[in-house]
Amino acid sequence: EAKTLEDILKEKGVITEADYKEVTKSKAFDYKVGNGFTLTSPDEKFQLTLGGRLQTRYTFTDLEENSASKPDSSKWEAKRIKFWLKGYAFTKDLTYLYQVDFANSGSSKMLEHAYLNYRLIDEVQLLAGQTKVPFGRQWLNSSGSQQFVDRSMASDMFRPGYDVGAKLHGDIMKGLATYEFGIYGGAGQSTVRSSNDNAIAARATINPFGKMAYSESDLDTSPKPLLSIGANYYRNTLNKTATTTLETNAITLAGSSGWLGKGLSTFATSEKIDVNAWGVDAAFKWLGASAQAEYLIGQADGQTSNKTLRAHGFYAQAGYCIIPKTVEVAFRYSYVDPNRDTANDLITDTQGAVSYYFSKHNLKLQADVTNTHDQRTKTDDKQYRLQAQIIF
Amino acid sequence: EAKTLEDILKEKGVITEADYKEVTKSKAFDYKVGNGFTLTSPDEKFQLTLGGRLQTRYTFTDLEENSASKPDSSKWEAKRIKFWLKGYAFTKDLTYLYQVDFANSGSSKMLEHAYLNYRLIDEVQLLAGQTKVPFGRQWLNSSGSQQFVDRSMASDMFRPGYDVGAKLHGDIMKGLATYEFGIYGGAGQSTVRSSNDNAIAARATINPFGKMAYSESDLDTSPKPLLSIGANYYRNTLNKTATTTLETNAITLAGSSGWLGKGLSTFATSEKIDVNAWGVDAAFKWLGASAQAEYLIGQADGQTSNKTLRAHGFYAQAGYCIIPKTVEVAFRYSYVDPNRDTANDLITDTQGAVSYYFSKHNLKLQADVTNTHDQRTKTDDKQYRLQAQIIF
Amino acid sequence: EAKTLEDILKEKGVITEADYKEVTKSKAFDYKVGNGFTLTSPDEKFQLTLGGRLQTRYTFTDLEENSASKPDSSKWEAKRIKFWLKGYAFTKDLTYLYQVDFANSGSSKMLEHAYLNYRLIDEVQLLAGQTKVPFGRQWLNSSGSQQFVDRSMASDMFRPGYDVGAKLHGDIMKGLATYEFGIYGGAGQSTVRSSNDNAIAARATINPFGKMAYSESDLDTSPKPLLSIGANYYRNTLNKTATTTLETNAITLAGSSGWLGKGLSTFATSEKIDVNAWGVDAAFKWLGASAQAEYLIGQADGQTSNKTLRAHGFYAQAGYCIIPKTVEVAFRYSYVDPNRDTANDLITDTQGAVSYYFSKHNLKLQADVTNTHDQRTKTDDKQYRLQAQIIF
Repeated sequence: EAKTLEDILKEKGVITEADYKEVTKSKAFDYKVGNGFTLTSPDEKFQLTLGGRLQTRYTFTDLEENSASKPDSSKWEAKRIKFWLKGYAFTKDLTYLYQVDFANSGSSKMLEHAYLNYRLIDEVQLLAGQTKVPFGRQWLNSSGSQQFVDRSMASDMFRPGYDVGAKLHGDIMKGLATYEFGIYGGAGQSTVRSSNDNAIAARATINPFGKMAYSESDLDTSPKPLLSIGANYYRNTLNKTATTTLETNAITLAGSSGWLGKGLSTFATSEKIDVNAWGVDAAFKWLGASAQAEYLIGQADGQTSNKTLRAHGFYAQAGYCIIPKTVEVAFRYSYVDPNRDTANDLITDTQGAVSYYFSKHNLKLQADVTNTHDQRTKTDDKQYRLQAQIIF
Repeated sequence: EAKTLEDILKEKGVITEADYKEVTKSKAFDYKVGNGFTLTSPDEKFQLTLGGRLQTRYTFTDLEENSASKPDSSKWEAKRIKFWLKGYAFTKDLTYLYQVDFANSGSSKMLEHAYLNYRLIDEVQLLAGQTKVPFGRQWLNSSGSQQFVDRSMASDMFRPGYDVGAKLHGDIMKGLATYEFGIYGGAGQSTVRSSNDNAIAARATINPFGKMAYSESDLDTSPKPLLSIGANYYRNTLNKTATTTLETNAITLAGSSGWLGKGLSTFATSEKIDVNAWGVDAAFKWLGASAQAEYLIGQADGQTSNKTLRAHGFYAQAGYCIIPKTVEVAFRYSYVDPNRDTANDLITDTQGAVSYYFSKHNLKLQADVTNTHDQRTKTDDKQYRLQAQIIF
Repeated sequence: EAKTLEDILKEKGVITEADYKEVTKSKAFDYKVGNGFTLTSPDEKFQLTLGGRLQTRYTFTDLEENSASKPDSSKWEAKRIKFWLKGYAFTKDLTYLYQVDFANSGSSKMLEHAYLNYRLIDEVQLLAGQTKVPFGRQWLNSSGSQQFVDRSMASDMFRPGYDVGAKLHGDIMKGLATYEFGIYGGAGQSTVRSSNDNAIAARATINPFGKMAYSESDLDTSPKPLLSIGANYYRNTLNKTATTTLETNAITLAGSSGWLGKGLSTFATSEKIDVNAWGVDAAFKWLGASAQAEYLIGQADGQTSNKTLRAHGFYAQAGYCIIPKTVEVAFRYSYVDPNRDTANDLITDTQGAVSYYFSKHNLKLQADVTNTHDQRTKTDDKQYRLQAQIIF
């Protein structure tokens, strides 16, 4: 790194050590890996960071019952094309985040985060706007800091996704415990509804060895063990407006790939469905090893039909850096039972991954292989994925 | 604010006062509240400002005839998620603005402004691209500098919205008068049509005590009175292509919540409709008090059916800063008669607002309450809104 | 341009020539015309450039058979509203580009480029993500550096557009030759498919007098002649899923204005269509004169029906700067035969253009006139276009 003018003037004695500290204490302009370029106003009351994250992916699917009409296939994707604007304004305690994913250009799902957060104290903070609904450890863990190419099937089927509302949250005793309690519109990502059925989500974690950020893999080779245990709850009421659709399709668990979306035929058209979901989870890291598991339950009750749909899912994964901070191997097992009252409908994923971290999660290449066993069709399909990720 | 290196070198006599002026006359990088971060090229021929505005809102609606099928309801919104890029290029007289609202992600309405403006002299300027059609004082007043949580019902129902075209405009005698004359494609925001029926809009204001920017509330506690009087006109021809739709739904007054959109059944399918609208308005500010009123008329004539739809609307509002520059109370009355040839169809809003301005319109909390009286249903519904706004 | 603090301190002898070089070797912040504002991290490992390009256009169409139902018409457009983020990260060899066009807000076509490129050596580079499919000289030439208001009809009808995939490419002997070989998902811009029918594109150029960038007009008044000769090939397999639609409408040549899209009725519904396209092209520049031509062939074969559709197209254009670097006149001839097995269906464009370049392609005004002769209707329609472009 080159010397700055300030360095040289201090060396020559043109400016004093105190002068040097004064003029360099605030950098108008800076870059931080994993974050982006940051501009800070001279009075340090305003800050803006611009950055992005790109994932490009190749997937090959090898079907057990490969046929002319449904052949093995490959897929090319610019899977995530994130761009963010974040910072603070007026005071460091008033932060904001805009995040879009241009991979969803043309869809209202392009908008992910758009919120204001006010920190009264670390323990009491209020967020208003759109952000992730706090339900599910792996869902809250950025898709950019995963140990595998993407999240587990269980996380994908049970997460609510994004929603608009207000959240009270905080870190207790420097992160030994955290809590989040939110009230949301209940129609999901970038979707507004007028309703007396707001959604509610609550989550708490305890972290006995100190704060543990949501980020998979132990890329810091943690010298001390880190442990986090979490539990969360989500409720909502959704109107089934037609034979196969709800009033909204912007809630992941109620969408076409969610447990509720897959089981919609259970309910009568035009009835309201009470949705309740629970989850417990834990994560651990030490000396390059990491492990994480989560168990998720969902129940939906038709208010008119009195029918009930019950689902549950689970994953457990573990990884180890065979070359510290650089090469990691990981293994994961995940299952989902989309309807506990139907026999032989379990779907099970067994996955292995190898990741090469050039610069932690900021520049990495990941490959994984998945065996999906479907009890209904008694098939074992395989999927091979290769992904490059850069954060700039 | 910390001293800069330049400040210190001047104090120490390393550089002269003239040197200081030379090196600090152009700031490569600056921040201005309400505007954003600005980058300026070393030759001062190029400038780019990045900024955004976020509104998060909660609304509770208390219906007079509250029922199980149509209950009282609440609504959470990230109402406006604006992001702008603006500046000049090649010369300070050639300015540009891009503005998107990510709250409309997935819709062509995400794009708001995209224009070039060339200033020959202050009195003669030419703008090309998409921007607001100059019709209606409150429409031209940014949603970010309103005295209430949002614009009046009359402004919402009579405004054309955005359109693409070219506009000649200028400030006469430093803003004692202003004029705008534009020709537009006529299909509205982010919508292109090939047509021989271009739309036209014209607006003029006189400001006897000097230029008065479009911004509600007297947050500068104006020591001298400020007054602005305006008048505007808009014409367009729109094809009614189906029973309930026009060739475009991107013109606000012709959309589902506009006076023309609500009265479309007046006209025959496949006929062309000539649309004419007029408005007069005035605004006043002095010593923390502000008042504003606008009267708007619309008339639509079917070319084939010879049917006519006539509508008018009005609002008047006044506010006073009970704590100067900080706490304001405001009152507004607005009515719309969507069809003057139908009796007892008036809708009337009576509104009160309290605003807390932490930093003028750049950081504020606003709450308002609205009583909507609908002559048709003889109901009085109430709406309570709370909104936070930040400009970063 | 004003002196910098570094300049003054060097003049005064406060810092040495070596110090000056040290502190100014990397500019944290810079502007380059045609590119935008650039931020560079202190360690020079990260760089981000922000910029945009705006085209505003007016078009008047004068039809030979002008009638009340199909009259002469005018059109106003903010035709292109590009915004880009580009730079490098971790090393100068790892570059990225995000580009959106807000003129396509609300459509997945808003996203144009989203890729990572790794340069091993100039001769061997690998790109992954979404970008232009390398087929067609004029298609690869930015819409921002055209000699006319827009590309030729032949280029518009034969180009594949954007797609997602991976491309191996390089410059041989400092650009005396170039090659590109890509494999793509085959569903086109911002569209993902799982398929065993990936698309392939290949292109090579030879440039006997040295590298020649894709940019029309000789705005540098090249003192030495420049010549580039190219050839390219594209293949894909597309499923015709309904009477008038393919599985995707995001491939330009297969869309409503492409040669394949226009000839879809040739094929049976539900059959797979093999698409092959070839092209040869050349471009030349010298002393303010420029010329360019391209010949394109397409063939589509139904796998079930055994029907074949064959199309070809051509354009040739030449321009000369009558005032060097400032005023250029240009002429173009283009034809397309969308179905070579149908007689009298040729469409021919004859075009003339005048361009005023205030700052090369970065700030220009262009006007052109087109006569379109359609053999089927035996009509000659005229189109007049005026366009302003700014790159900021």
